[in-house]
Amino acid sequence: MKRRHSPVAKLGHVAAHTPDLDESLWFFNEVMGLQVTERDGDTAYLRGMRDWEHHTLSLTESGKSGVDHFAFRTANEEALDELEQQFEAEGEEITHVEAGEENGIGEAIRVEKFGHNYEFYWDVEKPDAPEGQRSGLRNRVYSESVGNRIAPRRIDHIHVNDPGQNAFDHDEWLRETMNFQLNERFEAENGEYWGWWYAVTPLPHDIAIHREPEDDPTQFHHVAYHLDSLQDLWTAGDICSEHGIEINNRSDGPAMHAITRADCMYVKDPASGLRLELFAGPGYLNFEPDWEPIEWKEETLGGPTNHQWHGGGPTWDGIDYV
Amino acid sequence: MKRRHSPVAKLGHVAAHTPDLDESLWFFNEVMGLQVTERDGDTAYLRGMRDWEHHTLSLTESGKSGVDHFAFRTANEEALDELEQQFEAEGEEITHVEAGEENGIGEAIRVEKFGHNYEFYWDVEKPDAPEGQRSGLRNRVYSESVGNRIAPRRIDHIHVNDPGQNAFDHDEWLRETMNFQLNERFEAENGEYWGWWYAVTPLPHDIAIHREPEDDPTQFHHVAYHLDSLQDLWTAGDICSEHGIEINNRSDGPAMHAITRADCMYVKDPASGLRLELFAGPGYLNFEPDWEPIEWKEETLGGPTNHQWHGGGPTWDGIDYV
Amino acid sequence: MKRRHSPVAKLGHVAAHTPDLDESLWFFNEVMGLQVTERDGDTAYLRGMRDWEHHTLSLTESGKSGVDHFAFRTANEEALDELEQQFEAEGEEITHVEAGEENGIGEAIRVEKFGHNYEFYWDVEKPDAPEGQRSGLRNRVYSESVGNRIAPRRIDHIHVNDPGQNAFDHDEWLRETMNFQLNERFEAENGEYWGWWYAVTPLPHDIAIHREPEDDPTQFHHVAYHLDSLQDLWTAGDICSEHGIEINNRSDGPAMHAITRADCMYVKDPASGLRLELFAGPGYLNFEPDWEPIEWKEETLGGPTNHQWHGGGPTWDGIDYV
Amino acid sequence: MKRRHSPVAKLGHVAAHTPDLDESLWFFNEVMGLQVTERDGDTAYLRGMRDWEHHTLSLTESGKSGVDHFAFRTANEEALDELEQQFEAEGEEITHVEAGEENGIGEAIRVEKFGHNYEFYWDVEKPDAPEGQRSGLRNRVYSESVGNRIAPRRIDHIHVNDPGQNAFDHDEWLRETMNFQLNERFEAENGEYWGWWYAVTPLPHDIAIHREPEDDPTQFHHVAYHLDSLQDLWTAGDICSEHGIEINNRSDGPAMHAITRADCMYVKDPASGLRLELFAGPGYLNFEPDWEPIEWKEETLGGPTNHQWHGGGPTWDGIDYV
Repeated sequence: MKRRHSPVAKLGHVAAHTPDLDESLWFFNEVMGLQVTERDGDTAYLRGMRDWEHHTLSLTESGKSGVDHFAFRTANEEALDELEQQFEAEGEEITHVEAGEENGIGEAIRVEKFGHNYEFYWDVEKPDAPEGQRSGLRNRVYSESVGNRIAPRRIDHIHVNDPGQNAFDHDEWLRETMNFQLNERFEAENGEYWGWWYAVTPLPHDIAIHREPEDDPTQFHHVAYHLDSLQDLWTAGDICSEHGIEINNRSDGPAMHAITRADCMYVKDPASGLRLELFAGPGYLNFEPDWEPIEWKEETLGGPTNHQWHGGGPTWDGIDYV
Repeated sequence: MKRRHSPVAKLGHVAAHTPDLDESLWFFNEVMGLQVTERDGDTAYLRGMRDWEHHTLSLTESGKSGVDHFAFRTANEEALDELEQQFEAEGEEITHVEAGEENGIGEAIRVEKFGHNYEFYWDVEKPDAPEGQRSGLRNRVYSESVGNRIAPRRIDHIHVNDPGQNAFDHDEWLRETMNFQLNERFEAENGEYWGWWYAVTPLPHDIAIHREPEDDPTQFHHVAYHLDSLQDLWTAGDICSEHGIEINNRSDGPAMHAITRADCMYVKDPASGLRLELFAGPGYLNFEPDWEPIEWKEETLGGPTNHQWHGGGPTWDGIDYV
Repeated sequence: MKRRHSPVAKLGHVAAHTPDLDESLWFFNEVMGLQVTERDGDTAYLRGMRDWEHHTLSLTESGKSGVDHFAFRTANEEALDELEQQFEAEGEEITHVEAGEENGIGEAIRVEKFGHNYEFYWDVEKPDAPEGQRSGLRNRVYSESVGNRIAPRRIDHIHVNDPGQNAFDHDEWLRETMNFQLNERFEAENGEYWGWWYAVTPLPHDIAIHREPEDDPTQFHHVAYHLDSLQDLWTAGDICSEHGIEINNRSDGPAMHAITRADCMYVKDPASGLRLELFAGPGYLNFEPDWEPIEWKEETLGGPTNHQWHGGGPTWDGIDYV
Repeated sequence: MKRRHSPVAKLGHVAAHTPDLDESLWFFNEVMGLQVTERDGDTAYLRGMRDWEHHTLSLTESGKSGVDHFAFRTANEEALDELEQQFEAEGEEITHVEAGEENGIGEAIRVEKFGHNYEFYWDVEKPDAPEGQRSGLRNRVYSESVGNRIAPRRIDHIHVNDPGQNAFDHDEWLRETMNFQLNERFEAENGEYWGWWYAVTPLPHDIAIHREPEDDPTQFHHVAYHLDSLQDLWTAGDICSEHGIEINNRSDGPAMHAITRADCMYVKDPASGLRLELFAGPGYLNFEPDWEPIEWKEETLGGPTNHQWHGGGPTWDGIDYV
């Protein structure tokens, strides 16, 4: 099998709404340690200590909660044009975003796929860290002096909820049209799949789908940032405890998940309800050009040999798109 | 208040029985990474990578499970004599143990206090690690080359169960007679205490008491070993998962406890039922000569600011004394 | 600029000779903790805890020292054919390697480029870990139970020495013909470049070139394996001290390098002289599709703001190709 | 041998002078992460994240550099009286310090021993962390939210320089009069001792003596603080590099020392010249009541089995007493 290259290079950012920007910034910036690149009117732009792009998370105060869109950067400029032509040929409704409509992002296109607001872009600004905060190392953005004891490094992945058949259609589109590599999937005892994990990079996943009951809403479940080490993850749990922030919606601590070999925990911005996953540890990097998806079943996941600490993590409530 | 010095210098060892020594050694030595100093007949002697004494755990195959005794080393030779005189004066039944009856241990005395088999000794052998396993560093015992990815460092503390009033009597004896420092205690909502943590060293505790209902048995709950780092604790959880060994009796992972600020997890030897706590992270060292016991209540322990990940750890079943 | 895709997917393995296979296995397997997949006649095949391929290092006892070849896996089967045609068109002397001539590796081609023995292959076996050593996690190869306290995870990169003009020609070939991405390079005070770091993956580098004086030999400098954490790197230094193995040829410890943001140390197999770099910490992952090479100069590398602990690492003696 | 108890419970604090308090606070507070308890006139009082006492370091702006005194807390109130009587009997010149002369410290006495300004005290304030900074955990002082990525935990030890015979006299006094336990010492090839490490707690050392040539000044060499982990030590080196702060006076990174099994590095306050050691890792805790001092010689310390990374650490220049 010859694997085709994806038109997508990497996950770019998530744009979310919040009813209270100050409270959301308390959570994401002060407590969690994401850096604020810029605050412009009702919108704040944030990124991790090693994120090069202008932002990997934007928060807009608008009286509501929800995800506006999530964005992928294309592999090159032509790939963006080709994606546009492809969407046009498929009859998708394309929204054109002017350069600078989102600070730092050039011309972009948006399409709604299976209820999810996808954005694709090529041009992007990569602003330096502010004077006094930039690292003396040219392969870093911020100096370690700037970070708190969590200090997320970089955006890692997103996870979305698809009801019923949508999950299967979304899966097929990601694999067949977008050429994302399916790294792992989960098959329930009744033979039904309910989870898929995909990557366009060697990360264990850049995007994942969780299948929900037919009548449930299409939702955005979480955005994940990567931490430098297990110790930072543990400290993150510690700091959440100090602030009374519930972990995993369950008052428990960092977990190890079998799927994607994640050391992780989940917390929610109290203002917007946007869930943040902190993802740490080496996990695995997948450089294999002929990877066969790992097929998880109940008996390989749990049972006597249980690699799923904390019963598998968060609850599956997400937030809507706005 | 002038704090008197305790006749005790440190926790020494735990002597337990097992119905299957080979299986117990698979658990404690192969999986957990304790080092075997010596196997002599039906008894194996184990210790951690930085334990100087001949052993800190002994396991004797005897067709039964249970703890034979736990032992404290006295502050000096005279302290052992004075303890003996004191027990005699109090009318305690003293068992004299000849030197070498336990390999590596000199003359010792044993008394049963509140159902627990206490041993006290002064003389002890401190054998070097075997040729090829000893560290080139003279302030270490074993070389890191010898350790697996858990490799407990040293015995840390023991925890016992006392039913009803016994707990209060045991508490008073440890404080008043033995001059152990009470570092922390827990008071339930009804004003009743159910937990006490004591030290004769700057460790958060060398021995702790858990109060059980009046009609429950007096039991030994666990022996704890200290690991070098949080990462080793996490790996221990990982390795337990590989072997299907339940963590905390609940299939969850490493926990953070508020009391004694413990990063920890609990596992049981499948053969003997003896519970092992792996204890890691910096916790705290208590050098204060005028320490006021920390008084924990439900509202400081849990509630909105929850520092008790995993609901507080293990279940409270222990094993009997034999 | 449209980045073209490289015909290469990843670094595969290094094949080296040793005058004493037992001593080399003591070093790479017993001390360093690489796993032995297979020992077949005079050749041992090794890999890291998370390496999927049959081996990432082979050692053949042959009375001599040196590197036989290093190998890259192609992006797909067609890419191997196209590479062969390209080399033929360029008049390169191609050596065809039959499937199985190296255990686990299918048909391969070899060309000598600038004195370095390159191998390219597509087919490869990915044997499971032996019974009792495989992880219960299907996205891992070996269980953590198997590892020692170093336990390298996966092959990371190689570094070679090119004398004089060869370095510039090699650089051009890697960028222009092989479409490797140049991530970082170093320019000395006199305006001359002496180091280049390239990747076909998001790793900081898969291969690097060090320029040596005109009359020096073309050499292989080191192969690097990745460790899980800084702590494992530190322990590796500790274990080397126990065995009297010199670190960095200089009796010093783990270092931080500015270029590629490496936490690392260098040791040599005493039998073969093959240098092993242990590489740890998060370093950085480079997902940027429009990366501009970082241009290091003396003043950004060292000086008052010095990110080069230990003066820059190892000495620059390598070993020859055989 | 019956070990007598020391009149001293623990190391308390170091009081130093600085020509520029703002610059010293930039170094100790902003960069290194010590917490400021209070700034009162020309003096700032600092402590680590887990230090209970009012301060463990004070810095007074006075136009000069140097150490005013270092202080030990006595085991109890009577021990302070007995020490005073003992010093009087020996004809020592005793300086009486009124309660509150140093903020947070009660009545104290000072004596100059072998040129070092010793202070002893019993009464001390243990102020809580400020509102919003205190941990919800009652066995901690500051919340992890407050810390930067170094965030020293607690004062660990001090190290002083004694010229010639003074070193031997100081050694005898610490052992014989003060009942400090000698844990390790170093004997040069010519049979002369040049280093001694003592403790009154289970730490590897609370105070150490370095012997200097006969005509050198009596100096204070460094004060050490303990970090939570090796990773924090590494980050400390990283942050020093960002600020152009030389490590070990030698532009190298964290080191492992054989003596006291230290993971450590040394930096100097650019304003006062006071050297700070950051001390991390488990080292060892010494609970043995019958410890025989470890006798280091050149051949056990270095040579082929070298546990002294970075050539043994800092240079031996200290600062004078004022």
